[in-house]
Order: sequence, then structure tokens, then C-alpha cells
Amino acid sequence: MAAKEEILRALRESGGFVSGEELSARLHVSRTAVWKDVNSLREEGYGIDSATNRGYRLVSCPDRLSPEEIGAGLGTEFLGRKAFCYASIDSTNEEAKRRALAGAPNGSLFVAERQTGGRGRLGRTWDSPAGTGLWFTVLLRAGSLPLRPTATTLLAGLAVCGAVRSVSGCDAAIKWPNDIVAGTRKVCGILAEMSAEIDRVEFMVVGIGINVNTASFPEGLREKATSLLLASGKPVRRVALLQEILRRFEALLKANAAALTPEFLKEYTRRCVTLGRRVGFRRGGRKLSGTAEKITPRGELVVRLPDGRRETVFSGEVSVQGIYGE
Amino acid sequence: MAAKEEILRALRESGGFVSGEELSARLHVSRTAVWKDVNSLREEGYGIDSATNRGYRLVSCPDRLSPEEIGAGLGTEFLGRKAFCYASIDSTNEEAKRRALAGAPNGSLFVAERQTGGRGRLGRTWDSPAGTGLWFTVLLRAGSLPLRPTATTLLAGLAVCGAVRSVSGCDAAIKWPNDIVAGTRKVCGILAEMSAEIDRVEFMVVGIGINVNTASFPEGLREKATSLLLASGKPVRRVALLQEILRRFEALLKANAAALTPEFLKEYTRRCVTLGRRVGFRRGGRKLSGTAEKITPRGELVVRLPDGRRETVFSGEVSVQGIYGE
Repeated sequence: MAAKEEILRALRESGGFVSGEELSARLHVSRTAVWKDVNSLREEGYGIDSATNRGYRLVSCPDRLSPEEIGAGLGTEFLGRKAFCYASIDSTNEEAKRRALAGAPNGSLFVAERQTGGRGRLGRTWDSPAGTGLWFTVLLRAGSLPLRPTATTLLAGLAVCGAVRSVSGCDAAIKWPNDIVAGTRKVCGILAEMSAEIDRVEFMVVGIGINVNTASFPEGLREKATSLLLASGKPVRRVALLQEILRRFEALLKANAAALTPEFLKEYTRRCVTLGRRVGFRRGGRKLSGTAEKITPRGELVVRLPDGRRETVFSGEVSVQGIYGE
Repeated sequence: MAAKEEILRALRESGGFVSGEELSARLHVSRTAVWKDVNSLREEGYGIDSATNRGYRLVSCPDRLSPEEIGAGLGTEFLGRKAFCYASIDSTNEEAKRRALAGAPNGSLFVAERQTGGRGRLGRTWDSPAGTGLWFTVLLRAGSLPLRPTATTLLAGLAVCGAVRSVSGCDAAIKWPNDIVAGTRKVCGILAEMSAEIDRVEFMVVGIGINVNTASFPEGLREKATSLLLASGKPVRRVALLQEILRRFEALLKANAAALTPEFLKEYTRRCVTLGRRVGFRRGGRKLSGTAEKITPRGELVVRLPDGRRETVFSGEVSVQGIYGE
């Protein structure tokens, strides 16, 4: 570890002042070297107080998506313990799949400031400009996946929804199966992909894209998309949001390993804006619509048609009246 | 294209003698250069006759897994049109997945003389020594996959079985879903893997490993495995076998795109050694056994239990009494 990171760690661990003398003794460098590193950290955006005879104190951290910032105080067991951070990448999902084939460990996190080829479901493009969003992917290997891999996507949805509500205060809800909306507009999309044999999933990559501090959207997107900044009126620390999502997602993965629990389904149902609304979907080439009634223990959506019959929908292409531009 | 490949192509196309003069005119090189290239081809294992005043004639080709040999007279539309050939690779399935992520085209073929980390189903190791086997993988992208991706594995099984019977004369049969056996021993394993969103397969890689000219097997494997050489008593040209598999597999993919056809099911049933036999499988942690009755239009295996109930098995872990060491 570089001396700079060690200083940062010492200041973080202390929580208060640490003398220059102590730092120089701990790191086996001169006090001038300590002073230089502190200044370099300040240039990177760290707020570090200094006081004569007392030393240095960390007062603020930049909202920087680095392995150090993400790892500091994360507290998970496997999710995000290994973080790959990029200024720019084609797509965090693609990178995660490549790294998975090359042996990246379970729980690996892939974060980029910018995606040049971000994708949504069904190959759609996903806009991911630099600096204002949180674009990341987690890699889950066989042992950490729920028994039904399709459940992963619902678990991720509730993790994001809960983290967004707790960190930003924004009144976020889930559009089944895994879009996160604020009011009628989308703030987050989730794209889960898997690499599998016919009857055994080897790994999944779960890509999550959140419009965090985006100040405005281009014409055409404005009606459909919003950001946590626009929805809550205040900027949100991306690192804090990311950490909270990782913690919640890991906890949900552990609690729902064998099957979706009644507790999960209750909480998901409470946050799911789709239920009770009129929804449209396709079945065998035909367009059907009805009222979304409930989520099954397998994570499917039950829709009551006008003639009273019920249809079970098990994957994404469902439109919800009044939500997200419909 | 190098002059050498052009000479080879000209000789192949002609089928008979082509004069040195004609070759030198066609390639814009001297007759001495033609003569040198012909000798170089001979060193690579091509049998090329020469006769005064008549020129050169191709009489035999080496059984070499090169793009040129595989492509010559292949006649498919997309399967194997682009061939990646390796002397040694970790696993052709892994390479295919890596290349798929990097944009390799639909139908791409990956062949290796040797795999250093070959795998069978469920992560088992698969022995793939140099020179005597045919270890390859084909990449199928969304547009070329059957509506039910699980059908792919059955189509591949019948393609291999048919090609083996036609090229080697060996009385090969299918152990459902996709092992190929000669008598009671295995000659070929198939490992299909997919990269998919929850409800959409992006691509599949179908790995096929065939013991072709293996003269002997180590202790422990001898009871379970055999080769086409051992089963039919004569060596088999790997290139010819590979081409025949690619042709049959492509034709089956096209004919069964929407669903497994009655014709396919009839032919598969005829070749399936599992049917009518006593089979064992696991269901909900319990070991069950019964008689394999039929293959459903979805490619599943129907097993009649001793108490008369029927169970439908949809994936691989089925043992067949009397076959492959059981």
C-alpha cells in the first residue's frame, strides 16, 4: 500500500487528530514526506484539517469511485470486496463477463465513471454520461446465487429501492420486475445476465445504472427519466449509495438463497408500484392488458384479465399505465 | 491469400491436372516459384502428383485442422464459415465465449489440437490429448438458435451421431440428452453453455469432444470410453467428420428453428439408446429409477416409475443401465 493510502487509513481509523510524528513513525517516512502526502490527498479532494501540536484530521472525503473509498467501512462479506474502477469502459456488464471468464472472484464489483456502450434490456442502448451517475455491475458466482437465478433480479431491485430511499430520501418505488422509479419517471435500470449450462448457472452479472446527480435530461428522455438530484432536490453521495446497495443486496442474497421468503415478498409488494395498476403485456404474439394483482413466490407477476382469467407473467416486457411514459 | 493457398485452391477446383504454366499465369509468379510452393505443400502433407506436360494434380490432403482444410468443400451457410484453429488452448468453449464477447460472428468455429483445461458437464474435467481427437466449439448467436435453447443440445447430439455413423461406419447411438456412445462406451460428449438475459439468450457455445483416432485409454477410463478407431477398426479423417457434423447441425438448426419437428423426434428416437432401458435420476434429493419411455416435443425424457407414475426429466443427470459403466 502506498504511504498516501496508509495515511488515509490511519486518519479514517482514528476519527480524530493524528500527529505528524505518529504518522511518520508508523510509515517510516520523514514528517516532510507526511506533509507532502497530506497535501496531495487534499488535491484529490480530501478535506484534511491540520492544527499545531495536534496533527491532522480527516473531515471530508471526495465522492470518488475508487477501491479505497468504496472499501472504507463497506462491511460486506463478499459483495464489492474486490472493486475494479474505470474512468471509462464499454459496458460494466461486458467487462464483468470478460473478467468472470478470466477468473475474477465472486462478488467482484465493476464501476465506471462513464460507459461508452452501455446497454439496457433486450439490447437497448442506455445513456451513461460521465460524473453524474452510478454505473456498476456485480459478479455473482454459483455459490452466491439464489436457487432460482431469476430471483436475483428481484432481490437487486429491492436492494436498490431501499438504498435509494434511505440514502437520498427520495420516494422511490419498484416497477416490476426491477426498474426503479421516482414518481412516474425512471431513475434506475437493472440488467441481469447469466452464463449457464442447460441446467446449471455458472455466474450472473447484475448491472445497475442509476441517474444520481444528473441535472437535466435531453429532450425525449425528459418525460421518462429523472435523477435522484431532481427527485429529492439535493445531491447524493454516490459512494454512500453504492455501499448501501451492496450491503442490502448481499443481505437479501443470503436471506433468500433457497427461495424468496415471505418477508421479502411482503417488502417487495409494499414497494412495487405495478400492483393494483392496469398493465399491458404480450402473450403468444397478442397484446393483452389487465390489472396486476400480486407477485408469486417465484417472483412472477399475476395479472387479472377483463374476463376474470389470470395470466402469470415471468419476464420483463410489461407496461404500467401512468408510469414511465405510458 | 498466399500463393500456396491459391495453388491448393486451383488444384482442388480442377480435380485433375493443372499445368505449371497455367498456375504461374494465374498467380503472376514464375514457374520456379510455383514449383517451390508445390514442394512446400508436399512437406505439409499434401499428396501432389506431377507429370511432364500435364502439370500438377492433388491426390490427397493431410487430416489437418486448418481453416483451409475445414473450409474446402464445406458447403454450409454460416456454421464453420469462420474457423479459429489452435495447436493448444485452455478450452474451446472458454475461447468461444471470450471471442463471442469480442464480437466473433454467428457460426464461428473454434478447434484445438489439444485442450489444457477441457471441461465436461457440471465442471468435470474432460481429457483432450493432442492429435487423436476432435475438440471443437461452435458459436450460435440469437438469430440462429432454436426458439427453445435447450433444444440445441439435442440437435447437436443427432448431428454428431449421424455424422459419426456416416463417416466412420461406427454403429453410434445417443445417450439422452447428448452423449454419443459406441456399444456401451462413450465416444463423444457435448457441453452447451449460454450467455443470456433472464428471458433472452444472447448466444450459445456448443462444445463437442470426440475420441476419433485414440488407440488406447488409460486404466479407469478404458471401461467407459472408446474411440471411433477402436469401435470401427479403422482411422477416421477428422476434417471429413467435422465437416459432416457442421453440415448436419446447420441443417437441423434450420429445420427445427420454431420447435422440434416430428421428423426430428422420430429420427432422434430411432438413435436414442436410452429409450426402453432402466434409468436412474435424482428428483428433489431422492434417487429414483424407472423405464425411459419417450422424448417429448420439448426434448424432455419421460420415465415410467415402478408404481406406474410418470416423471418428466429435463436435464442431463440420468444414468442408463448397461451403458457407459453403469
